[in-house]
Amino acid sequence: MEQVLTFYCPDKIGIQAKVTNLLFHNEAFLTDVESFSDSKSHLFFSRVVFTSNKILNIKKDFKVLSKELNMQYEFNNLSKKIKVGILVSKEGHCLNDLIYRSNYRGLNIEVVCIISNHKNLRPLSKINKTPFLYVDTDKYNNKESELIINNELKSKNVELVILARYMQIMTPTFVKDWQNKCINIHHSFLPSFKGAKPYHQAFERGVKMIGASAHYISNKLDEGPIIEQGAEEISHKDSVDSLISKGNDIEARVLSKAVTYHAQHRVFLNGAKTIVFR
Amino acid sequence: MEQVLTFYCPDKIGIQAKVTNLLFHNEAFLTDVESFSDSKSHLFFSRVVFTSNKILNIKKDFKVLSKELNMQYEFNNLSKKIKVGILVSKEGHCLNDLIYRSNYRGLNIEVVCIISNHKNLRPLSKINKTPFLYVDTDKYNNKESELIINNELKSKNVELVILARYMQIMTPTFVKDWQNKCINIHHSFLPSFKGAKPYHQAFERGVKMIGASAHYISNKLDEGPIIEQGAEEISHKDSVDSLISKGNDIEARVLSKAVTYHAQHRVFLNGAKTIVFR
Amino acid sequence: MEQVLTFYCPDKIGIQAKVTNLLFHNEAFLTDVESFSDSKSHLFFSRVVFTSNKILNIKKDFKVLSKELNMQYEFNNLSKKIKVGILVSKEGHCLNDLIYRSNYRGLNIEVVCIISNHKNLRPLSKINKTPFLYVDTDKYNNKESELIINNELKSKNVELVILARYMQIMTPTFVKDWQNKCINIHHSFLPSFKGAKPYHQAFERGVKMIGASAHYISNKLDEGPIIEQGAEEISHKDSVDSLISKGNDIEARVLSKAVTYHAQHRVFLNGAKTIVFR
Amino acid sequence: MEQVLTFYCPDKIGIQAKVTNLLFHNEAFLTDVESFSDSKSHLFFSRVVFTSNKILNIKKDFKVLSKELNMQYEFNNLSKKIKVGILVSKEGHCLNDLIYRSNYRGLNIEVVCIISNHKNLRPLSKINKTPFLYVDTDKYNNKESELIINNELKSKNVELVILARYMQIMTPTFVKDWQNKCINIHHSFLPSFKGAKPYHQAFERGVKMIGASAHYISNKLDEGPIIEQGAEEISHKDSVDSLISKGNDIEARVLSKAVTYHAQHRVFLNGAKTIVFR
Repeated sequence: MEQVLTFYCPDKIGIQAKVTNLLFHNEAFLTDVESFSDSKSHLFFSRVVFTSNKILNIKKDFKVLSKELNMQYEFNNLSKKIKVGILVSKEGHCLNDLIYRSNYRGLNIEVVCIISNHKNLRPLSKINKTPFLYVDTDKYNNKESELIINNELKSKNVELVILARYMQIMTPTFVKDWQNKCINIHHSFLPSFKGAKPYHQAFERGVKMIGASAHYISNKLDEGPIIEQGAEEISHKDSVDSLISKGNDIEARVLSKAVTYHAQHRVFLNGAKTIVFR
Repeated sequence: MEQVLTFYCPDKIGIQAKVTNLLFHNEAFLTDVESFSDSKSHLFFSRVVFTSNKILNIKKDFKVLSKELNMQYEFNNLSKKIKVGILVSKEGHCLNDLIYRSNYRGLNIEVVCIISNHKNLRPLSKINKTPFLYVDTDKYNNKESELIINNELKSKNVELVILARYMQIMTPTFVKDWQNKCINIHHSFLPSFKGAKPYHQAFERGVKMIGASAHYISNKLDEGPIIEQGAEEISHKDSVDSLISKGNDIEARVLSKAVTYHAQHRVFLNGAKTIVFR
Repeated sequence: MEQVLTFYCPDKIGIQAKVTNLLFHNEAFLTDVESFSDSKSHLFFSRVVFTSNKILNIKKDFKVLSKELNMQYEFNNLSKKIKVGILVSKEGHCLNDLIYRSNYRGLNIEVVCIISNHKNLRPLSKINKTPFLYVDTDKYNNKESELIINNELKSKNVELVILARYMQIMTPTFVKDWQNKCINIHHSFLPSFKGAKPYHQAFERGVKMIGASAHYISNKLDEGPIIEQGAEEISHKDSVDSLISKGNDIEARVLSKAVTYHAQHRVFLNGAKTIVFR
Repeated sequence: MEQVLTFYCPDKIGIQAKVTNLLFHNEAFLTDVESFSDSKSHLFFSRVVFTSNKILNIKKDFKVLSKELNMQYEFNNLSKKIKVGILVSKEGHCLNDLIYRSNYRGLNIEVVCIISNHKNLRPLSKINKTPFLYVDTDKYNNKESELIINNELKSKNVELVILARYMQIMTPTFVKDWQNKCINIHHSFLPSFKGAKPYHQAFERGVKMIGASAHYISNKLDEGPIIEQGAEEISHKDSVDSLISKGNDIEARVLSKAVTYHAQHRVFLNGAKTIVFR
C-alpha cells in the first residue's frame, strides 16, 4: 500500500538527508520523490511516495523530526478515495467528466453529492445514484443557499468541494470554511477576463486563443492560487457560441487535471501561488 | 505568377457569384479562395489567389465591380518581397529568426534596415550587410529619436515596420503614420499582463502558462488588433529568467507567423479585431 | 434552416462561378464557403452552407449543373441529427463523451444503439435509455457476431457506425457494407504502432509523445483514411498504465472531433486521404 | 559555482539517503534533485545540482560510495560550455537556431566547427568566425568523407556532434566513436516515416499531424534512443513544400531542446530509451 508523505519547512541544508535517512532506517522503499526549494519564500517543499511495513514507526519518528525542522506535514494513503461534493449550474461537461473518471478511470475521488441551482443535470446523477440536491437560488438568498449547501457538504463528510461551473459567488464565510479545499474552474485564461461572461469578453477583444484556469477559491474573485491552466487556438470564424463550446472542452480537461493533482496530494500552497508536482 | 486579390465590402447576396464570374470570364484559375461574412459588422471579407494572363482586364473590370459593391480592394503579386524595417532593443531572438526566414525560408520580406537603441545585435546585420542604425535614446528624446527612425524607414521605402522587442513606446504620430503597417510582439498572452515586465508579472501571479501576442500597434498600449498568439505550459520550477527564456521562443514563433500572414496578404482589419485567413 | 451542399468534380475554371451564380439566382444567402483544389487528383471539393426559401429550385437547377460538371453532390439539412450506432469493448471514455455531447453539447448525432462484447458499460446507456446490446464474442465467431451486430445497426436505421474502442477486427464484408460510414479510433499516432497494444509498443520504443488517430475503416488494419489526430507529451516517468490513461483522454478528444466533422458534412474522401473543412 | 552530479546504479533502498547524507556532511546546498527508479531495469537514476566549498572532499567521498553502490557517475560544472561540432547539408534552420542560442541565449555550448557537404550555409558561420569545413561528398566516398570529418571533430576537441539535418548515413565506425555523443534530428514523428523523405511519406499517407524527433544515433537507421519529440497539426491544404516548411520549425525547436538537455546533463541512457530530467 503506497503512502504519500507531503511536507514543507524553512529551507536549509540537510533536510533531504534527514528525511531520506529516517525513511531508510524504517525500511521504506521510495518510488517517487519530488522536492522544490523556493528561493523567494525560503521554504522547502517535498512529496515522497513510499512503501514500508513500518509505517507507525515512521510516523512516530517523523513527529520528532518535524519539530526539529519546523515542518508542516501529512501522511496519506495514496489509493484512498477522497469524498467530493460537486456544485454545478446548467453546464454539465465538467460534472460528466468527473463522474466518469471516478467510476471508470481510477481518479481517486468519490462523488458523494451533487448540488445545483438548476435541475437539468439531474440525469447525470443517476448512473451512480448519487444524491442530487436542487437549491432554488431564486427563492433563497445567497446566505440561505449556502447554509443548505454547507449542511449537505458537511453531512456527507465532504473533503473537497468542486465548483464545476457553479455560477454563484461564494460568501467570505464559505471561502474561509473551505480554504484550500475548494477548487473552482474559471472559463478564461486568468488573469485575462475575470468575472462574468469571459467568452463574450474574449470575443470582443479578438484574441486568437482562449483558455481555462482551475484555482482554489479566495475572497478576491478569480484571484485564488492557480493549479492548472489550458489554452487553445481560435480564429475570427469563432462566434461566442463556438468559443463557449471549445472552451467547455478546455474547462473539463483543466479541471480534471487539477482535481487529480489535489486528490493525489501533489499540490502545495506557497503564498498566493501553488506548487504542483506533476 | 500568382496574384492575390483581397477585398471587403458590405455583405449581401451575390458577392461571391459576381467576383468569381468576373475572374472566370477573364480565364483566371483560382488556387485558393477564403471568405468571411461577419454577422456583427455586416462586412464580407475575401482573399482570392489566382493565375491569369488577363490581369490588366481583371483589374479594369474589378474597378467597375468595386464601385457597384462599395468595395475596398487590392491586387498584389504573391511572390513580391515587401520591404521591412526592424526595430530592436537588446533581445535579438525575433530579429535573428526573421533574418533567417527572409534569407533561407522563403518568407517574402526583404529586411532593408535594422534600427536599435543598443549596439549588441549589430553582428546579426552582417550576414546580409543590412544597414544597422544605432539610435542613442539616452541622448535623444522620444520625438527626436523617432524622427531619425522615421527618416531611415522612409528613405529605405519600408512597407512594414516590425517592433521585434523594441522597448520604447511609440508616439501617436508614429502610430498614425504606420497604421496597420507596424506589427509589435508583446511578451504576454494579451490582455493579461500589459505594459512593462510581463514575465515578472506572470511569475508573481503564479500562472501555469505563459504566452506572446503579435498585434498591430495602436495608441492604447498593447491594445491593438491581435494577429497571432501562442502559449506554453510552465511550472512552479520556473524562475523569472526561465520564463523569459521560454517566452523568447514563443515570441519568435508568434511574430514570424504574424509577419508571414501580413506579407502574404492574409490579414484584414475588422474594427479592433483582425481576420486572418491562415 | 441551414442547408449544406457538398460536392466534388474534376477541376477546371469556372466551377465556383457557376455554383455561386446558381445559388445567387435562387436568393441563397451563403454563410460558409470552403473549397479545395487538389493538384494531384485534379479534383475540386467544396462545402457551401446557405439559407434559401427556394431549396427545391436549387436542387432542380443543381441536378442540371452537376451533369454538366460531372459532379458528385449532396444536400443535407445542417441541424438534422444523424443516427449513430456505437460499438465498444471495455473502455468507455469515448462512449461517455459522445453520449454527453449528443445530450448536452449540440453534437448533431442521435445514439440509437450501443453494442458491446462486454457488459461493464451498460450503466452509461441508462441516461437516455438507449438500447444496449451485449454480443458474446466468446460464444459466437466473428461472422456470427457481425451478423447480430449488423442486424441491430440496420434495424435501428444507423447512418454512422462508431468503433469507440471496439477491440475486434471487422470482416471485409462489414468494411464494405459501412464504407465511409464507419469511424474507428486507433489508440496511436498512425502510422506508428499499428495493431494491438500500441501503448505497450510506445512504452518499449521510448517515444516522448503519444497520440491517437480517428479514421474510416478499411480492409488494411489501421490504414484507412485519417480524419483527425492528436498527440501529447509524455516522459520516462510514464508507465504503460499512465500512457493508457493519458491516451484515453486524447482518444476521446480526437474521436469526438472526427464524429463532429462527419456529422456536419465536413469530411470528403480523396483517394486514401481525407479533406476536412474545419 | 553550481555542480551537477549525475549517477545511476542498481536500485535498492537507502541510495538517496546515502547520497544526500554525503552531500550534507560536506555542506552542500542542493538546488535541484531529480531521480527515477525504473521498475523494469531495476536501475536508479539521479541528477543533483548543488553548491559547496568542499567539492574535492565530495568527489573523494563519492568515489568510495560509488564502489559500495556499484554506481556510474559524473561530476560536471553546470556553467561550463561544451564543445560542439555541427554537421549540416543544405537546410540551415537548426544550425542558425543553435548558433543564435549559443551566442545570445545562454545555451552552454560552444560551436567550434561547422561541417557541410554543401556551401550555401557558409554565411551563417561568419557571425562568430566559426571554421566552416566543406566536404565534397560527391568527390569522396563515405569512408573518406568521415575520415576528414572525424579529423576535424577530434582536432577541435569536440565533445558533442550534432547532425543538424545532415543528409548522409554515418558508418558503424562513426556511430561507435560517438556513441551517446551524437544527436541527430529526424524530420518525422518516429517511429513513423523512418528513412528518406519523411514529409513526402507523410503527405502520401494523409496524416493530420507531423512531427520531428531528436535522438542519439545508433546503427539501426532512425532507431536510436529518442531524447525529444514535437508535433503540429496540418491539414489537407498542406503541400509537401508547406509540410517541409512547418516541419523545419518543429525540427529546430525539438533539436534545440535535446541539445539543451544534453548540455545540462539532464539525459541518461536506459537501454534503448532515455531518461530526461526536464
